[in-house]
Amino acid sequence: MHTVGVLVFPGFELLDVFGPMEMFGHLPNEYELILVAEVAGKVKSNPSINVWADTTTSDNSKFDMLFVPGGPGTRYEVNNDYLIDWVRQAAQNAEYIVSVCTGSALLAKAGVLDGKQATTNKAAFNWVVSQGPDVIWKPSARWVEDGNIFTSSGVSAGMDMALAVIARMHGMARAEEVATWCEYQWHRDPSWDPFAKTHGLD
Amino acid sequence: MHTVGVLVFPGFELLDVFGPMEMFGHLPNEYELILVAEVAGKVKSNPSINVWADTTTSDNSKFDMLFVPGGPGTRYEVNNDYLIDWVRQAAQNAEYIVSVCTGSALLAKAGVLDGKQATTNKAAFNWVVSQGPDVIWKPSARWVEDGNIFTSSGVSAGMDMALAVIARMHGMARAEEVATWCEYQWHRDPSWDPFAKTHGLD
Repeated sequence: MHTVGVLVFPGFELLDVFGPMEMFGHLPNEYELILVAEVAGKVKSNPSINVWADTTTSDNSKFDMLFVPGGPGTRYEVNNDYLIDWVRQAAQNAEYIVSVCTGSALLAKAGVLDGKQATTNKAAFNWVVSQGPDVIWKPSARWVEDGNIFTSSGVSAGMDMALAVIARMHGMARAEEVATWCEYQWHRDPSWDPFAKTHGLD
Repeated sequence: MHTVGVLVFPGFELLDVFGPMEMFGHLPNEYELILVAEVAGKVKSNPSINVWADTTTSDNSKFDMLFVPGGPGTRYEVNNDYLIDWVRQAAQNAEYIVSVCTGSALLAKAGVLDGKQATTNKAAFNWVVSQGPDVIWKPSARWVEDGNIFTSSGVSAGMDMALAVIARMHGMARAEEVATWCEYQWHRDPSWDPFAKTHGLD
């Protein structure tokens, strides 16, 4: 069983979290999903729906996987030294580090991505890059896998990456099963990225 | 502005709700998203994450759109006469009626789909069909649009359908914008359904 610490904060992007959690959730004997927030309880997503975080960052829990979503809230959280310190510490303790969309800005700001290859949301690419000058940013990629770090492009790219994480940890057959159960057309090729072109990045 | 009453219940399927809500949420001037539960407050999804419902069914609020997700919880809720009555009433008051996955079992049980064309999850097809003998069930369809009723196939099909709802209500250009923002490859063709074949339904 792998514990997954899913960081949430005001203005996290809904599908960044719940697309991947749907995928991991289909293997309940493999992943325990735990929402973690600086202030536990109700946390308001972007656009507007509230979720409930049972765990606070001050619990100093260790997680086998650190999961960091994006969303407009990342624009504030990159300047939240407390949270960035927590991300750095949680990443040091984790076996796998995973981000979706502008969640990679938080990892970058914490120094977790220094010297690593990574990607992010295409619409916010330049802003995210500015948070991590020592990261090897990939402008065209559905997701990037560098060692134990997976970073995906925007929003729905998180689902494709989550299936790749499952494939790495539990084999391709399990990932295929999950995709089929979800009636999801998995983009298996991490270099598939038509949205890079849309945003003039390819 | 259209109010969207999003029914949640214990064991609703995470992505059934949050895929479509991500899409609708990108038009905050068009859609107000309201989680509604028989018991307001924390509601536990399948697989495990809690969301927060601000509104209860006993408020008798009227919504412009009724949105019903699926998930293992529907197996219980089809026998919850109170909730089925609420669904029937909410559907009568709504301009649009939308379901994902086995959510159509709840609509069918309430009689909302009688004489209408509809679809559902492919893995649970026979069970859902048994809830609505007077429904014209379509075994192969990503989603089905019959008048003001949209029903989709399993889990991730809800995202394709939500974009079709946006296209119908606000034009194709708005739907395309949302899909691009979400870096989502929209399956625009409702007859695209490779998963029907996987489950021997096509």
